[in-house]
Amino acid sequence: MSGSFRDRRVVIIGGLGFIGSNLARRLVERGAEVLLVDTLAPDQGGNLFNIDGIENKVRVSTVDVRDEQLLYDLVQGRDYLFNLVGQTSHLDSMRDPYTDLEMNCRAQLSILEACRKRNPDIKVVFASTRQVYGCPEYLPVDERHPLHPVDVNGVNKMAGEWYHLVYRRVYGVRSCVLRLTNTYGPRMRVKDARQTFLGLWIRRVVEGKAIDVFGDGRQMRDLNYVEDVVEALLLAATSDEARRQIFNLGADDPISLRDLAALLIETHGSGEHRLVPFPAEHKAIDIGSYYADYRRIRTTLGWAPKIPLRQGLAEALDYYRTHGQRYWEEEA
Amino acid sequence: MSGSFRDRRVVIIGGLGFIGSNLARRLVERGAEVLLVDTLAPDQGGNLFNIDGIENKVRVSTVDVRDEQLLYDLVQGRDYLFNLVGQTSHLDSMRDPYTDLEMNCRAQLSILEACRKRNPDIKVVFASTRQVYGCPEYLPVDERHPLHPVDVNGVNKMAGEWYHLVYRRVYGVRSCVLRLTNTYGPRMRVKDARQTFLGLWIRRVVEGKAIDVFGDGRQMRDLNYVEDVVEALLLAATSDEARRQIFNLGADDPISLRDLAALLIETHGSGEHRLVPFPAEHKAIDIGSYYADYRRIRTTLGWAPKIPLRQGLAEALDYYRTHGQRYWEEEA
Repeated sequence: MSGSFRDRRVVIIGGLGFIGSNLARRLVERGAEVLLVDTLAPDQGGNLFNIDGIENKVRVSTVDVRDEQLLYDLVQGRDYLFNLVGQTSHLDSMRDPYTDLEMNCRAQLSILEACRKRNPDIKVVFASTRQVYGCPEYLPVDERHPLHPVDVNGVNKMAGEWYHLVYRRVYGVRSCVLRLTNTYGPRMRVKDARQTFLGLWIRRVVEGKAIDVFGDGRQMRDLNYVEDVVEALLLAATSDEARRQIFNLGADDPISLRDLAALLIETHGSGEHRLVPFPAEHKAIDIGSYYADYRRIRTTLGWAPKIPLRQGLAEALDYYRTHGQRYWEEEA
Repeated sequence: MSGSFRDRRVVIIGGLGFIGSNLARRLVERGAEVLLVDTLAPDQGGNLFNIDGIENKVRVSTVDVRDEQLLYDLVQGRDYLFNLVGQTSHLDSMRDPYTDLEMNCRAQLSILEACRKRNPDIKVVFASTRQVYGCPEYLPVDERHPLHPVDVNGVNKMAGEWYHLVYRRVYGVRSCVLRLTNTYGPRMRVKDARQTFLGLWIRRVVEGKAIDVFGDGRQMRDLNYVEDVVEALLLAATSDEARRQIFNLGADDPISLRDLAALLIETHGSGEHRLVPFPAEHKAIDIGSYYADYRRIRTTLGWAPKIPLRQGLAEALDYYRTHGQRYWEEEA
């Protein structure tokens, strides 16, 4: 277990997004004083409904996190900073690489500059992505796997990781990097596939529409339920062993995309999926099969995912059957 | 030899800088039609005196290269693009990481976006840096050495390399990456140590001032005379084998910094150097000893440096004894 957060002062950047808001809920339960910072950028995961029910137990700031000076007051006096900001869409990063640069590089630099100038003792956890590995040379992918990102998003997330390591080395800002794989669950963005394909799939199943699976659907993926990811973030923040390290998250039950589509439909109780050819834009940056070797975090921090895929999908579907309108109509 | 450039249409981004202007001279000699693009950013290497004598044989544009649309006309119809833009100061990248991001990441993206949209057949050569390796794990450093940059400049230059590889893979923009080591010679920035420590050393020797060598001066470096680097750039542009590859440049005669200081003074005929403790800012991002294994480019493209260090230093000193005022007073 990731220890007590009673009266600990926590700031979550990207705190109105999918993972940030789930993390906030857990921290509120554990007695932390939680500040959420979120630019609420268009087409990203930030959604005020994500804090429905805890809105009076957290503080929210919607400043532009690329402006270092606006962050000074927000990081000062905080014990932990969870850095969950970021543009997540691979396609968008190719269509508009500058916006990806702003959100995945400039925002990281401003956060780190604010920390080193105003709170160099803060503990930082940065959510990176499997995308930095590009097309796997071998499976499962461990942390020693070479980095060769295949899209601008992967390059910029890689730079974001490195900024954290540089600021640790040069300024002593303590940070830990988690490389997340596909994360899913309540409060994910499901309006489209920008955050993850699975979001759009869930929306389509709940709306009674067919799921499109690209190619032959044999590409393998591993998936983490968001509560498991939240636990990893908390462990990474509080463990002395975690500092300066990079950890993969992952799951024990990788699954092909077409089996995942079938499982999702089965869990929902109805639906259909169809195999469609890869759209050219997707094909150009597809990474084939991916699943992670997460033994390093298991050994070092004792983390392992607990929620089986079937159970996680059931909970996610349940959430969107009830609250879906708050997600697909948002920003419509 | 790097072949004919007669009537080839070439654009050099960063063309008024140290390496860009030396490259321009060689290309003019070889009959190329040369366009120089340079933002003339403050504290960078761009200097109109660098094209003294060829100013009527080249075209110059001083647009802001971060603005993709301003580049459309400049890349259209060109056979080759030499991408030599960039902020080079490691210290400045730590003091102001945002400017480094603009020049080493945003400018790269705008150049590549302009190429893919207006001239996807152009051949691109990108000048990267040994800084992407960080502190060497072994010497000499070959291209398989892991990348672990120690400063923001190194991270951003690494991202710049990766953008080139991504645009090649996704859009077919042909590019080759050279990782330069310390380059020196006429037209380098010598006003201060922003481009390389050796620039400042040369200025000080010519001005009759003592050279400061940090630490014990035993750190090893390899150095390339700029004419050798120009030849590598031309080979990388014209060779079919070069595409998609990354090549180290390097030299056969690495030298310790204190021996280099002594050699510089001996070559000039007078001067003195002193060992001084590392300033803290420098120490925090120092990489220790570095020299490259450049066998890949020697084997693949037949490149090897030809100008011995002693000869190169003599030519550089000679240049600044004559033209120094044009460099140390510039932007004063």
